Amino acid sequence: MATTAGDEKTVQTMLRRWLDDDDGLDDAWREEYNVYLSFPDANNPNKVTVVDAANVVKHSIREKEKPYTDDQRDPDVVQPYAAYSPAGHVKGKLVYANQGKPSDYEELSKKVNLTGTIAITRYGGAGRGAKAINAAPYGVAGVLVYTDPQDINDGFMSDTNETYPHSWYLPPSGVERGSFNRDFGDLLTPYLAAKEETYRIPPENIVGIPPIPIQPIGFEDAYVLICALDGDAAPFAWQGAFNCTYNLGGPGFKPTSAFSNSDVKMDIYNQEVIKNSANVMGIIRGSVEPDRYVIYGNHRDSWVHGAIDPSSGTSVMLEITRVLGRMVKQGIWRPRRSIIFGSWGAEEFGLIGSAEYTEQYFAKLSERTVAYINVDIAVFANAYLRASAMPSLQSVIFKASKEVSAPGESSTNVYETWKRHYNRTSGIHGVIPRLGYLTGAGSDYAAFVHYLGISSIDMSYTYDRSKTNARIYPAYHTAYDTFDYASKYIDPGFVSHQAVARTAGNILIRLADSLLLPFNCADYAEVLDSYLTTAITLYQPQLEAHNISIEPLKRAVAMFTTNAEQLDKTINSLDRANETPLTIRRINDQLMLLDRAFLDPLAFPDKYAFRHVIWTSNSAGKATFPGLADAFAQAELSGLDSDWEKVHYHLSVVSQAIEGAASTLGDVI
Amino acid sequence: MATTAGDEKTVQTMLRRWLDDDDGLDDAWREEYNVYLSFPDANNPNKVTVVDAANVVKHSIREKEKPYTDDQRDPDVVQPYAAYSPAGHVKGKLVYANQGKPSDYEELSKKVNLTGTIAITRYGGAGRGAKAINAAPYGVAGVLVYTDPQDINDGFMSDTNETYPHSWYLPPSGVERGSFNRDFGDLLTPYLAAKEETYRIPPENIVGIPPIPIQPIGFEDAYVLICALDGDAAPFAWQGAFNCTYNLGGPGFKPTSAFSNSDVKMDIYNQEVIKNSANVMGIIRGSVEPDRYVIYGNHRDSWVHGAIDPSSGTSVMLEITRVLGRMVKQGIWRPRRSIIFGSWGAEEFGLIGSAEYTEQYFAKLSERTVAYINVDIAVFANAYLRASAMPSLQSVIFKASKEVSAPGESSTNVYETWKRHYNRTSGIHGVIPRLGYLTGAGSDYAAFVHYLGISSIDMSYTYDRSKTNARIYPAYHTAYDTFDYASKYIDPGFVSHQAVARTAGNILIRLADSLLLPFNCADYAEVLDSYLTTAITLYQPQLEAHNISIEPLKRAVAMFTTNAEQLDKTINSLDRANETPLTIRRINDQLMLLDRAFLDPLAFPDKYAFRHVIWTSNSAGKATFPGLADAFAQAELSGLDSDWEKVHYHLSVVSQAIEGAASTLGDVI
Repeated sequence: MATTAGDEKTVQTMLRRWLDDDDGLDDAWREEYNVYLSFPDANNPNKVTVVDAANVVKHSIREKEKPYTDDQRDPDVVQPYAAYSPAGHVKGKLVYANQGKPSDYEELSKKVNLTGTIAITRYGGAGRGAKAINAAPYGVAGVLVYTDPQDINDGFMSDTNETYPHSWYLPPSGVERGSFNRDFGDLLTPYLAAKEETYRIPPENIVGIPPIPIQPIGFEDAYVLICALDGDAAPFAWQGAFNCTYNLGGPGFKPTSAFSNSDVKMDIYNQEVIKNSANVMGIIRGSVEPDRYVIYGNHRDSWVHGAIDPSSGTSVMLEITRVLGRMVKQGIWRPRRSIIFGSWGAEEFGLIGSAEYTEQYFAKLSERTVAYINVDIAVFANAYLRASAMPSLQSVIFKASKEVSAPGESSTNVYETWKRHYNRTSGIHGVIPRLGYLTGAGSDYAAFVHYLGISSIDMSYTYDRSKTNARIYPAYHTAYDTFDYASKYIDPGFVSHQAVARTAGNILIRLADSLLLPFNCADYAEVLDSYLTTAITLYQPQLEAHNISIEPLKRAVAMFTTNAEQLDKTINSLDRANETPLTIRRINDQLMLLDRAFLDPLAFPDKYAFRHVIWTSNSAGKATFPGLADAFAQAELSGLDSDWEKVHYHLSVVSQAIEGAASTLGDVI
Repeated sequence: MATTAGDEKTVQTMLRRWLDDDDGLDDAWREEYNVYLSFPDANNPNKVTVVDAANVVKHSIREKEKPYTDDQRDPDVVQPYAAYSPAGHVKGKLVYANQGKPSDYEELSKKVNLTGTIAITRYGGAGRGAKAINAAPYGVAGVLVYTDPQDINDGFMSDTNETYPHSWYLPPSGVERGSFNRDFGDLLTPYLAAKEETYRIPPENIVGIPPIPIQPIGFEDAYVLICALDGDAAPFAWQGAFNCTYNLGGPGFKPTSAFSNSDVKMDIYNQEVIKNSANVMGIIRGSVEPDRYVIYGNHRDSWVHGAIDPSSGTSVMLEITRVLGRMVKQGIWRPRRSIIFGSWGAEEFGLIGSAEYTEQYFAKLSERTVAYINVDIAVFANAYLRASAMPSLQSVIFKASKEVSAPGESSTNVYETWKRHYNRTSGIHGVIPRLGYLTGAGSDYAAFVHYLGISSIDMSYTYDRSKTNARIYPAYHTAYDTFDYASKYIDPGFVSHQAVARTAGNILIRLADSLLLPFNCADYAEVLDSYLTTAITLYQPQLEAHNISIEPLKRAVAMFTTNAEQLDKTINSLDRANETPLTIRRINDQLMLLDRAFLDPLAFPDKYAFRHVIWTSNSAGKATFPGLADAFAQAELSGLDSDWEKVHYHLSVVSQAIEGAASTLGDVI
């Protein structure tokens, strides 16, 4: 866990490995930041109880997960809690608020007066912290959150024969911990590296964290609470896997239940503290273009043991550095470009280590970074490759994945398995594996993608969705994410770990060592064009009704497509052996800097560090330009002229960004 | 004047010259923007009159300047007006408000109730539009502005033997026109290129333009008005060159004057209009690094004839393009890097053409531009060279100026004359000419310096301050800025024009053609260190009293100095003939991108497009870090904790920017 003695031990492990004389890197060091974290008080554990009118405790929520192996008995297992939930003591009648989305509270408030209630919610549908942020305006006093067996366990609930240690499913007392902030990076030092003397905003000015106490609990306890709720039955879509009807709450419990007339009481003792968190950095110097960086990273911190999250990814990173380091130490290989490895600290609290790193070295990284590769959880499950990236990197991911055997299936390769499970039809390539987009901030790629505009990849092995509906691997962020769990149920034999290491390593070498960067601009154009098609379908009639022309956007995408195809053609027709180094560098610079052209630091003032006008998260949930989509949704809702002006603004922003990017792909003068 | 038939004629001239087969450039074209301008109504001229209680006109302000040559009789001479002053009809008692600074109105309001008055102000001390913006909160209804003979004419007033056509001094009816906006670039399309379908903010949302009518007048009329004013005598510092006491106004005129009991009436008919303005762009393609740009520019538009402003600079640019173009066309020379020439449109209205250009091509220009050279008014007077630039360019300016003979003084050179008139003692170099800083937005360098962070130079020949106190050459922005005036009084024989063309051309060739960019980073460090010394002297005690440590700033400057000296040493010890092209490129990229590292798009939210944390304009007027200086001044004034927090914030911003810049100068990996 970030900043603990265990964290320091992993720092030392990384340094020892990366400074090893036989298979270490050229250099490695730690970089420290003083970051704002939130912990439960070990001497004063958070308590959630059911108390009757006389304050007699009728039920206590389990404070620690039930042990099945010694791992869970380790004294360092942190009590389940919601990082950045305020401390506080609240008591109220219980209500059931589904996933804690704005629409959930709105619907619930039509039936029940929420003032002073405690809302129990299930994970999913809304961000962790949002479940509390959305609740506060209704006067809700506190929020509980649990993982419904329907969402994580395909309905299984019993630890006598169904859940871990009998399977990969979450035992009844398992609790998903997590960070309940909305924005990434150190919360006290926005846009500044969190050094000792850096200016810090007053903690009360932090936005995007829970305004009321919130605490995660296991479904074992949630079952007891929810099945005792009074009031109307919740809508069908709100029902979960428990063998009772999920009622909304009277508010409060049924008179016939053991909790008749009782309240739920939350005693939360979380403490915020500024602590020292380290990144560990390691480098291999480039031989020809040392001033060009390929960055590869994963976080090092976990919530508990973190065998999968993050150690599956960290082990992949260590294997890659071992293999490359050995070749470097033996003097038989050195990449054309420099490679920087980052073992990020305090990711679990909000991608803090990677974000602070990008804030500290903003200029240098912006100017020189070719690409960022993130492998966090390397193996969610062992079915096929899941990769999200800027579309210009699609072709290098495909190339690499064709060169790696599918785990446990030597007759086929990673590419083919991926294509079989998850594909789309491209106008250019026909049926191909489907690449995801990096629109969110789910791992350490966020600052690289959204703040710096660096072409990035995030990848892992993932589930066969025909076999499970689990929203994530069931032991995620619990005390059960252990070596035993990982080796038995996630990736027996670690074959998928190997496939990810080989694929990611292959991509890394191609990015660091190719004469010409393996970027394909026409693939980027194809996605922009599909975004445009969606925008035309969804928005054009109403845009026209408001005298907003979509023509500039059409022209911009057309110009981008023309210039992208022209540049790809130039690259393909190059006589690589005989081109001058500066011609190669010129083209590589065009490719490297492509995503930088999409940055607009002023377009999304309400979204911290989101600057990329194509990949910024899109609340409207449409596969199209995010600023346009969100502004359109707002204008359609309000009908206000001022909101339609914002639609026009975002149309201009994205059109001019695409045109600006297109002009960087054309003839350089 | 921008967007007139005359402007189109100069567009055609530029295109014809730059597309000439014998001495033109590789290519040239026009780029158009639809920009928001403000003009008087030719059919309804602005009127300022003195009217008595019965509305009988007692005096009319002259509507056009008095002609001495046919130039002033040209029907295209625009009536003097204040661009972006609102139209309006106001009437009130006259008061004298000195330079229209906030302190002037504050002091005046202690003596006179300003509600409903007309304030007459003199040029200088505050920005043009600020004279009206500062007045409005006091209830002032309208503002007049004139040029006092003390400030422009060394006191001379008579056109019978003292002023033009007898000298360079301004005739009594001469009026300085100008743009009365505060922010640069098209006012309706902030941060977006002003294309036809671009989103435009509602005009009522424009900030930084006069909220009340304002009109410039000649000192001939100002004399009549001011010398008739009633009330207390204005403070000594407010007195000008008129042979009467400048009174504050009763408000209004003396009972003993011809204007007894009369008001001043302003009838302003200015019209805002969106018009098509063109930049003319011309290029010479680079032979080795075509993707590196040196940009050279000047605006093309004037207020009236503009022999000096801008045609002195435009003639210098045309001479440079003629000389370079001929060598290119003859096939005997082609620069290593590309050169882009910009003939900017609508500069006089607020640097519009250059700003829109940087908005449209933001990414491309940021990534590839080595430097920007601006020569607007090439010759203010013919005494010595005035140059302002980023300190890294000091050495190339010095080198070039040593190679050019001083105008009319073949025994010495431009460098020596400059050093004789205007020098400082450098810790590194001893006594050297004093270079100015580009902290303001006085000409088209603004967007390049402040918005893009491109190392820039602005230069001209200038006055011998021992011979005149004129705040600018007296015919500036009047109908007297003609060829006759320029050739007789500004630069007889055009020898200073030649010196500027030779110096600027020499710099341009060095920037475009040197193997290694002629940048010196230690000179940058020296200025940062002097800024630091000033900050320590002025601020350290009070910072400490507020628990704000200045140590991070000291460490940042020290790190910058170390890395800068190291890089300069590396450059000086290079074996230039044998280094690989990519080694040279790597160092050149470090030099080219140095100023980009100082950009922070969020540090100055109230200053449009000011992003450079070293050179942003500094209201506090101190030769130190601008964000720190302004925040400190505000905190000292208010004493508020929240203002001291802003001081800490700006200290962190500038420290981390300098550290970030320093890290780009160090070892690349």
